[in-house]
This record gives sequence, structure tokens and C-alpha cells, in this order.
Amino acid sequence: MQSYLNGFYPGDPEIAPLDPSLPAPSSGLPDEVDVLIVGSGPAGLVLAAQLAAFPGIRTRIVERRAGPLQMGQADGIACRSVEMFDAFGFSERLLREACWVNETVFWKPDSADRSRIARSGRIQDVEDGLSEFPHVILNQARVQDFLLEVMRKSPTRLEPDYGLEVTSLEIAAGGAYPVTVSLRDVEAGTARTVAARYVIGCDGARSTVRASIGRALAGDSANQAWGVMDVLAVTDYPDIRFKSLIQSADSGNMLIIPREGGHLVRLYIEMDELDPGERVASRTITSDDVIATAKRIMHPYAFDVRDIVWWSVYEIGQRLTDGFDDVPAELAGERMPRVFVAGDACHTHSPKAGQGMNVSMQDAFNLGWKLAAVLEGRSPQSLLQTYSEERHAVAQRLIDFDREWAAMISARPTDPENGDGAGVDPAALQRHFEQQGRFTAGVATRYAPALLTGSRDWQDLAPGFPVGERFHSVPVVRIGDAKPMHLGHVAEADGRWRLYAFADGVDPRDPASRLSALCAFLARSEQSPVRRFTPTGADVDAVFDLRAVLQVDHTRIDPSGLPSLLVPRKGRFGLIDYEKAFAPNGRAEDAFAIRGVDRENGCLVVVRPDQYVAHVLPLDAHAELAEFFARFMVSPGG
Amino acid sequence: MQSYLNGFYPGDPEIAPLDPSLPAPSSGLPDEVDVLIVGSGPAGLVLAAQLAAFPGIRTRIVERRAGPLQMGQADGIACRSVEMFDAFGFSERLLREACWVNETVFWKPDSADRSRIARSGRIQDVEDGLSEFPHVILNQARVQDFLLEVMRKSPTRLEPDYGLEVTSLEIAAGGAYPVTVSLRDVEAGTARTVAARYVIGCDGARSTVRASIGRALAGDSANQAWGVMDVLAVTDYPDIRFKSLIQSADSGNMLIIPREGGHLVRLYIEMDELDPGERVASRTITSDDVIATAKRIMHPYAFDVRDIVWWSVYEIGQRLTDGFDDVPAELAGERMPRVFVAGDACHTHSPKAGQGMNVSMQDAFNLGWKLAAVLEGRSPQSLLQTYSEERHAVAQRLIDFDREWAAMISARPTDPENGDGAGVDPAALQRHFEQQGRFTAGVATRYAPALLTGSRDWQDLAPGFPVGERFHSVPVVRIGDAKPMHLGHVAEADGRWRLYAFADGVDPRDPASRLSALCAFLARSEQSPVRRFTPTGADVDAVFDLRAVLQVDHTRIDPSGLPSLLVPRKGRFGLIDYEKAFAPNGRAEDAFAIRGVDRENGCLVVVRPDQYVAHVLPLDAHAELAEFFARFMVSPGG
Repeated sequence: MQSYLNGFYPGDPEIAPLDPSLPAPSSGLPDEVDVLIVGSGPAGLVLAAQLAAFPGIRTRIVERRAGPLQMGQADGIACRSVEMFDAFGFSERLLREACWVNETVFWKPDSADRSRIARSGRIQDVEDGLSEFPHVILNQARVQDFLLEVMRKSPTRLEPDYGLEVTSLEIAAGGAYPVTVSLRDVEAGTARTVAARYVIGCDGARSTVRASIGRALAGDSANQAWGVMDVLAVTDYPDIRFKSLIQSADSGNMLIIPREGGHLVRLYIEMDELDPGERVASRTITSDDVIATAKRIMHPYAFDVRDIVWWSVYEIGQRLTDGFDDVPAELAGERMPRVFVAGDACHTHSPKAGQGMNVSMQDAFNLGWKLAAVLEGRSPQSLLQTYSEERHAVAQRLIDFDREWAAMISARPTDPENGDGAGVDPAALQRHFEQQGRFTAGVATRYAPALLTGSRDWQDLAPGFPVGERFHSVPVVRIGDAKPMHLGHVAEADGRWRLYAFADGVDPRDPASRLSALCAFLARSEQSPVRRFTPTGADVDAVFDLRAVLQVDHTRIDPSGLPSLLVPRKGRFGLIDYEKAFAPNGRAEDAFAIRGVDRENGCLVVVRPDQYVAHVLPLDAHAELAEFFARFMVSPGG
Repeated sequence: MQSYLNGFYPGDPEIAPLDPSLPAPSSGLPDEVDVLIVGSGPAGLVLAAQLAAFPGIRTRIVERRAGPLQMGQADGIACRSVEMFDAFGFSERLLREACWVNETVFWKPDSADRSRIARSGRIQDVEDGLSEFPHVILNQARVQDFLLEVMRKSPTRLEPDYGLEVTSLEIAAGGAYPVTVSLRDVEAGTARTVAARYVIGCDGARSTVRASIGRALAGDSANQAWGVMDVLAVTDYPDIRFKSLIQSADSGNMLIIPREGGHLVRLYIEMDELDPGERVASRTITSDDVIATAKRIMHPYAFDVRDIVWWSVYEIGQRLTDGFDDVPAELAGERMPRVFVAGDACHTHSPKAGQGMNVSMQDAFNLGWKLAAVLEGRSPQSLLQTYSEERHAVAQRLIDFDREWAAMISARPTDPENGDGAGVDPAALQRHFEQQGRFTAGVATRYAPALLTGSRDWQDLAPGFPVGERFHSVPVVRIGDAKPMHLGHVAEADGRWRLYAFADGVDPRDPASRLSALCAFLARSEQSPVRRFTPTGADVDAVFDLRAVLQVDHTRIDPSGLPSLLVPRKGRFGLIDYEKAFAPNGRAEDAFAIRGVDRENGCLVVVRPDQYVAHVLPLDAHAELAEFFARFMVSPGG
């Protein structure tokens, strides 16, 4: 964590010092804003936390509720989300507070007595090497608290405006603030409007923003009611602190998710089959019904509920909107998007795979840096078209996955003694769960080659960093101070691009070194994206954050002999930044070996501000690198 | 981290729910308090954070300053202190913010040209296996902020009373609140008194509390002035982000400590030799003088100071008081102590070994749980005598260490070409530094057998847990949920004793198991310390927190088959605590192998609330265990 570049200040160093050349952050909702975010759920708050980092962008977030969420329904936090939270700076606190899902167990009818359940399998929940972070469980309200704290400490000191509901939204053909949003003060009942450059609807499945751009959720439901319940209970079921998939012979299926704090448990319990088109509300299912079903499923184990913290019933359904912005397909490319939707406003599905909050937050993380780049004049508006393109495909895959998973998990287990073949073989269920591990961990997203995603022509230089996937961090040692750390953890949620240069086999102090030549190109060439797209007067790493992993032991490098871009001088004092160059952490944790990086040629891994690998290039592909960024970046003021 | 035992509550789970049966926490300074802490430095705040955990104890802390410290002088945080901070719950945040001292480098005059310095050595700063935590650097003010937050979230919501200075203190022979403290409001100038059961002077080297109990710091100074400076600077010295010991040929010695944030650096610079008895203030040393000396020492490297954050000059000295409480040696055992001193009020020395803050905090951690035990009626007052006994010996060793180290670090390096033998051989300096590694890491403290420290008769059962030393944590897997974790990290700063039972070779479900027999003894025998000393109505682990490490794979244990003390029912709902039983984390991290625990016999490691090993006993030494606690504990109400 870096701080004090421009001088020491007392107190929490994460509270960003205010730039005296800018107006002081103001609270309250002005008449005109750059970005209006509607809804302060996980998607809205990730977006707000991202945009809050840019003091030049006037962002506001409105929320219908009167204050911060007290208790949320979502609780699963995929590895990928923890990776993102690390960039926001709160992975350590989250991991301390959350419940870790270490192993998942499978239970099915006991073959000797099918009225009883018996454990049929146990697997590691996240396979080794998938992420440096675990899969954890934490109440959505706490995740939101952490994001609110990021906003509060940011240079804009952003706070949501609570108690405001969007009633309608109109988009004008032109003007600086073309989107007019009508708001109602929930308590006072008064109305007002706000004009915005961009509006993002993170307002959930019944999104008013989505409706006002003429989009709808389309899909179906599976005619199956489920109960969900957070309880404090006493049981002799031995795996109550493990994620458990239980298939009973005749009483339905159930999912147990242990929760934070060591006592709380979430149950998903299969209830009645619904008639076609029937909504679950038509059945008067009570909490006692849900508990009674849980007890039947868990037989022969006792399950004594001592306190119900929250419960609900729902029907399984998968719904998706056909586009995530206000531009109809037939006008794509002609009109630029001004209104977006994210999260549940775009896709809803069953909660049991723990995906909803995670995919929603990734929607927002995808959009946030793009809005910042456009509003700061570093990219043309067309960059914003990539949001719907990229995220719609992800949502489609989520919907497909969930439909299959929900069907499996609602099916009866096959009975080997009664060979009608109906139902799902418990072994197949476990196999499917294991096969989907990368997906549920959130690391299976792979953007296809397009504006922001380069070709896979040079993928062989670093097969462990697949183009289009999230950058998978590796252990390294920082040369400046010998700190063992994770390379990917240098990435902060600050809208900057990371250029991870893995050195070729030549000593970087040798003129034949391709790494040195790359540094020279970036520092001095007229074609260099660093020179073209970094604003005058800004630190040299303000837009592109170059980091290098050398192929030598860290003790053999004198930082002052490194290319200047790897020991850049920054800030008002021109202090040297010693955190740009790394070395492999010994043989056991050799980043080159772990990711298969070509040791002779090295490579450049270009990583987007939302941590996705945009390109893998040879170190000497200077022209290709320049061309790549020129596709979607513009010179400041030009 | 456990929470929600008695029901879910929204918000930060670390904010302790208030007990409705107790009066609400009050701010302001009442006329009578149980404990009055004087001074809110590291010692005072560790003590306050510890006592704040006890809602039945009325603790207050007064501080002369008008508010929290903005910038402190101490910055070195030894591994041992991080271990303690882990018990207070903020190790993760501290490690995120702090600068990690990974390696230490040594520089001496270049043998080819002694006017230049050259690197002569590089060592790992903390040897492998010394602690699971690193040695880090963080401004004392931030450490204090973390402790203040612990207090704020505690059940007493304790805040210091600022702007109050102690003017005098008197101890009456009897009465419930025998210590009368006179206070002056620094701003208003008004006076008042507070009556306290106990008073602890954490008020620094010029302690009023110490003076008022007739104690003085005795010792001498080394007639050597040093400059200390926190700067932002630009240099081509390659090791500026490493802890560096630099011995120049003729310009003196210097210590570089990299600081948090990646830019700030602390320098300790040897300045003038003083005349006998002379104070440094008599020399008009300016910041320019200090910088000029630093530049001379660092030749041929440039050192361009861009910003001075803080600087000072001081003379080296080592001073110690002969007792840490108000009872003179001749009355020891006859009178019980009522007033204590801790930290700089007891011992002052040179700052260059980074020990001051660390030893001071350990003083307070030693005293805090003892005060709580006495005030809660669990121990007789005589327990408090052990504070001075234990901590005076530690302080004496610190003073001895510092005298030797300060002399070495102020000496000229020997010149092999000029064999007068004067000075210190740089290789010997490095060797000494390495040999003292355990001491400077804070883990060399070993309390001698006494009231609180058992004999070493059974040390062979677990040579890796030396009796009298701090409990050295080991990796384990928690059986209840397969979480890989550190056994020692279950210890919170809550005044409880930990009983770590390492299982014998017999399956704990077998009646011949000594672990099971121990659990049965503890749960049911009239002699059991758990039964004798745990208040009626309290959770069974309220005073003694039994944890077991079994010798089987975690997948082979059904928690419901464990002895009841290892799956205790707790709280208003009688929920089961699944966090008591552990298993070795595979062969690579086998706790039994790592600490040499006897696999056939197992053992019981008794650990004090301040994390020190009080005893190692055979699992079946029930009588010895009972006898040990009966030495210093009393039955509630008895």
C-alpha cells in the first residue's frame, strides 16, 4: 500500500488527501451530474466505489431505501470477487470476517436404508491453483458496508443519497446532460429531476431504469418452490459447518451453506412443485413448513431451529434482458449508449449457485473504468458499447448454467434398486459440481477477441495468462525491498491499465534486452501509448502502470540500474517508486514456470483496469502495442 | 471470528453487543473507578484495550494531550507484537498498512577505497520459523489508532479522557478505592480528584505516577549524540527500501529504516560525541547538520532530502527503575500493590533496536489480564505481584542488550589496513545482529518457574512449546469446517486461559484415550479447574478455553462423537461451538512434528491470557493441573 508520495499526513493513510486544486467534495444531489447510479446494491456500490476514485467526475448514487442495507439475501462470494475486492483494498478484512468454504460434501439416500441420508462424497470446494483467494460466505450487507467505506475514503467522499426513487427517465438526442431522471423523495413525496451524462440502473429485477429504456427480462420459471432460511440451530448432522448438497429419497433436496460467525447457517430447501404458471405466493408456505421439510430431508439427524434470522420462499426462474444499454440492436454503432443496466436489472436466476451478487459486481466493475475513461477524455464514447457486448454473453452463460444446475438440484436422486432411471444420479451431481468449479469461482469468464481483447496469436508466450480471462496472479518478490507478494495485488481499482512485462532471457542492463527496448519505446517513442495518452503533468504511470518480472534473483539487481520506467520519479518531490520491478520467488514459486511464460522471449501481458487480460504480446511488438491502444484511446485534449 | 451466538445483529460484528443486564457504557470520568490508566501511549492503550473487554470493570484512561496522537516516534513492530495484535483482532489491517522488513543489509567501508561504503552483507531479517508474522514498521500513531478502535468496539466503548494531567497521587492504607489521583485539566486549569482501586502509570520517561510512588529511573548515558529523521528523499543508494546498517570509515554510522507507504524513510545518524555529563541540548545541532552527516556517511551515494517529516536529536542512555509497582522490596508479600508503572515509565533506552514500543506493550499485556482476574474475583490480589517480578527481569535484559548494541553501533568499523584493532569488526556487528534475532523479534522472553510458570518437568512432551515462553503457533485444520488456520490465532485478548490438548495416540472415542479422560475430568470432576473457577451460568469456556489437536485426518472425525467439552453448547440458544477441535494440516504442516509433541502420550499446553506457556503437562496429570490453577485462582464467590 503506497502513501505519502506528496508528503506525510496523519491518520488513516487510505483516506485520500483532497486535491486543493479541485472543488471540495460536496454532498447532496446537484441538478447536473456526470453519472447517476440508481440503486445501492452490490452492482451499484461497486460502480460507485470505482467512480468515486475520480475527483474530476461528478458521480451520485440514489437509493430508495432510507439507509444502508442491514441484512442482505446474497452471501456467496466467489474467488473472483475477492480478487476484485483486493483491488478495492478490503480483501483482508473480508477474509477475516467471512466464513470460508473449504470443502463441499454430498449426501444421498443411504443404500441400506433409503429413508436415511448418508455422506456420499467430499471434495475441496475450490481446486488448487484456481485463485490465491478462497470462496467465502458473507452477508451482502457487510460487503456493501466495505464498499461504502471505500467511497467514504475516496477523493470524492461519495455517499449515497437515500430515500430517493426513480419514477421515470428520458433521453434527449443531444446536449451535455442528455438523460433526465425524475425522482421522488420516498418520505416527503416530493418530486425533482436530475440531468445526467450517463445513468446506470442497478435497481434490481424490477428495474425502473430498465423499463424506461424499453428492455424487459425474458425467460421462464421451473414451477418449483424453494424455501430459504437463515437460522441458528442445534443438530447432530456432522457436516453442519460444511457446504452440503443433500438429496433425500422422497423428501426433496436441500443445500446447507455455513455462514459467517461460526453459528449461523443458510438452508435452501426444496418445497412444493408448482402448477404451470403458478407463483409461489399462491401457496401459503410458512416458516414451520420450511423447517418441517428440512427435518424430513435430514432424517435421521435432529435439526432443532433455535432462532430464525430471515426466511423466504421463491420459485426458480431464469430471466435475461437482451441488451444492457439503451441502444436498440438496429442502432448499434450509430447511437452511443447513455443509459445502462447492471446486475439483477439484467439477469435473475436461482440463488443456489451463489452467482447473483458476484456476476452483478463484475458487471459494474466492467462498466466503471470505461465510464471513467470516456468522462476523463481518454477514450471515445464508443468504448461504452463494449459493456453490453461483453456482459450480455456472460449473463447468457450464467442463465444457461443456472437452468441446468437448478434442474439437477431439484431432481430426485436415482434409486439403484428401482431402476426406472428417473432422477439424477448423486455421483453425476457431484461430478457436475466439480466440473463447474471454475465457473462458480467466477474465473471462467473469457471475453472474445474484439475491440478490447486482442488476438490469441501470441498466447503461446504465456499460456497461463489466457487472453480475455482475468489476470491470474502469481507470487513474486519485489526487488526494491525483497517483499514476497502477489503480482496481481499491485492492481488497484483506479482505472489504470497494467502492463506486466515478463523479461526475456537477456539481462535488462544489456542493450540487447527486449525488456529494456520496450521500456525505451514506452518512455521515448512518439508512438508510445504512455507518451500519447498520459496527460501532461501527470505521473508517468497515471494511465499505464508498467511492472516487470525479471529473471534474476532479487539480490542481484541494483534498482538504479533499471530502465527509468521501472524506477519512475513521481509526485511533487520527484520521489522514486521502487515497487515496479519484481523477481521470481525462488524455484518453488517461479512465476515463469507457474504460468508457462517463455523464458527466452519473455512477453508483455496487457491487463485492463478491471483485471482482465486484454492482450499477450511479444516484448518487441511495439507497433502492435501502439495499435492496440490507439483503437480505443485518444490523446488528452486531442 | 465468531459472532451471532446469541442472535444475529446488523452492522460490524466486531462491535460488541451491549449486555442489557449491565448499565450502559458511560463516557466522562466518574469520581470512582476500578482502574485508572495514566497516559495513552502504546502501553496505556494496550492496557485499556485489554480492560475494555470487561464490562464489569470500570476502567478509565487519562491523557495529557488534547486528542489522539497524530505522529509518533516509535515505529518498529516486532513479530511478537503482531502476534499480540492478532489477539486484539487487527493484525490483518496492520500488516496491510505497514512496511515489511524482509531483509537487513550491512554496509562498511569499501576495502579498495575506504571513503566509499560498500555492501558487506545481506540477511533475512527474521529467521524462518521464528513467528508466523513478519517484522514490520508502522508509525506508533497508527498502532494507537487501531487500539483505540478496539476500545471503541468493546462492550465498554471506552474512550480516553484527553487533556487531563496527573499532578499527584496518594495511596491510603485501606478502603475500596485506596488510590487518590489529583488531576489538572490542561486547558481549563481546574483540578479534581479520582479515587481508584488501581492506578497504572503509562506516562512515559518523566512519569508523575512513578515519581509519586518513590521510584526513579537509574542508569547512565553514553555521551553520544544521535540524530533521528523521517524524510522523503531521492537517492541512488540501492538499498533505500531495506533496513540498512551503515558503518562509514570516518563519518560515523547510520541506520536506515524504510517506512510504511513506500517512500518515507527513517534515518538514525551518529552525530557528535558528547562530553561526560553533557546533554545533547547543549549542542545546537540543526536538521542541516544531521542531513550533512547522513550525506557524508552515504558517500558515494547521493542523498537529496525533499521533505523532512520529523526530526530530533538525542543522547543514548539506558535507564531502569528497580520495581514496577508501589510496594518496596522490604514489604513484598506483606502489602499488595495498588499502583503500577509500565513502558517508558519503567525503562528507557536507545530507539535503534526498535524495542521500546514492543516491550512497553508486552508490559501492559502482562498486567491487563491479571488486573481483570483480580477485579472479577477470579484471583487473589497476590497475583498482581507477579507483574513486577516478571517484567522487571525482561526490562533488565532489554537494558543490557541495548547497552551492548548501542555501543557496537556507535563504534568505528575496524580498518584491516590499520591494525590498531580499534572499533568493531563489521562482520562481528552482523553476527551480533543475527544472534540477537530472537530477542529483537520479541520472542526470547522466558519467564522463570514461579507462581504462574510451571516446572519444566514435562517439557520433553513438547520441546517446541518451552514453558515460560510465548506460545508459538502452529498450522492446523479445524475439524468442524476444514479451515486451514493457525492454532494460536484462536487466542483473543479476552482474559481467558487456553488449554491446548495435543491428543495421545489413542482414538479420542476410545475410553482408553487420555484426551477423553482429560475432557471427562475437566467437565465433571469436583477438582476440575473448569468446574471450580467458571462462574455459574457462564459458558463452559468462559474462563478456560480448551482446544484439542487430534492425531487423525479431519475427514475421519464426526464432531458429535467428540467429548462434550470439544463441542460445547453455549449462549442463550445452547448452540454448539464447532471451533474447538483441530487436526494436523497434512504431513507438510504437521503440528506434532513441528513442535516435537510426543505422539504416543500427547500433552496439555497451558497458555496464559497473554499468550505465554504457563505449563506443559501430561494429559493425565489431572491433579497437577488442578493444583497449578489453585495456586492463583479462587472459586467465584469463594
